[in-house]
Amino acid sequence: MIYNKNIDLHCSMNIIIREAISKDMSKVLELIKELATFEKEPDAVIVTKKQLINDGFSSSPKFKCFVAEINQEIVGMALGYPRYSTWKGPTIHLEDLIVTKSKRGLGIGFKLFSKFIHYAHELNVKRIEWVVLDWNKSAIDFYKKNGAHVLDDWRVAQMDFNAIKKFVNNEDF
Amino acid sequence: MIYNKNIDLHCSMNIIIREAISKDMSKVLELIKELATFEKEPDAVIVTKKQLINDGFSSSPKFKCFVAEINQEIVGMALGYPRYSTWKGPTIHLEDLIVTKSKRGLGIGFKLFSKFIHYAHELNVKRIEWVVLDWNKSAIDFYKKNGAHVLDDWRVAQMDFNAIKKFVNNEDF
Repeated sequence: MIYNKNIDLHCSMNIIIREAISKDMSKVLELIKELATFEKEPDAVIVTKKQLINDGFSSSPKFKCFVAEINQEIVGMALGYPRYSTWKGPTIHLEDLIVTKSKRGLGIGFKLFSKFIHYAHELNVKRIEWVVLDWNKSAIDFYKKNGAHVLDDWRVAQMDFNAIKKFVNNEDF
Repeated sequence: MIYNKNIDLHCSMNIIIREAISKDMSKVLELIKELATFEKEPDAVIVTKKQLINDGFSSSPKFKCFVAEINQEIVGMALGYPRYSTWKGPTIHLEDLIVTKSKRGLGIGFKLFSKFIHYAHELNVKRIEWVVLDWNKSAIDFYKKNGAHVLDDWRVAQMDFNAIKKFVNNEDF
């Protein structure tokens, strides 16, 4: 028998991927903050647990969330929502794919990613879209290996709340 | 009197910006195809007029569209939909801002953009987001002048319909 320690570890850990429920949002918010710190913007998160519960679990939820559990402890999540392409029709956006630092390298990110792709397939969308930091080479390699294209010539543009207010009030930038 | 030909032209043209209705979708689709050609992907548009009508004007519409009219002729459009930021909460995405080639330089793009920003402000979203091609310098200058940030370090990743199918069927890429 060929003994593969990683596979053994993997199995004994009993990773469960399931749809999130509202009471998971406390831990989900912790993961969101962990990712923001990794992306060098620790203070950018203004969303609260209460808002995540309201926005994700009302009669018309604004997002869909899956979580990864090991021994009843949430260690990762994938969160997304519908978008629309004027070229392709309905698509879906993967906003976040997060595995807590101490549990990386065990295939949990792949399991969450896979769950999300299967979910998109069930919805019959024509495209899944997300963004990735250009210096996050391991993430880019992971995505490409799994069939994604990374578009080098498109840039994300954003207008934040202050800029929106200034524009509406005809103030200079 | 200082005579400004452009302002005079502008006024005499009587530009109207209004919410789109379903029967505008034929002309809106023409504009979508014109933009796809400009963006060097003329064959990428698979969406149909019927689909735009179904998706935009059902009881739960997938997008919001504004059009620009000169003498009852549609010459431009802005189309967007809600998104969700796990940092900020509800946001909005501007998917397309298009003015037909023969009517550029008359301020129509600004009027459509302005309408969309005001719409976002009414919705009280924390951010407006869109993408722009890195070689489209005039668009980037326009957006920056109006308070947007263009993020140089984020890349768009996409998985198309074939890649989704291959992934779900465990095929190699």
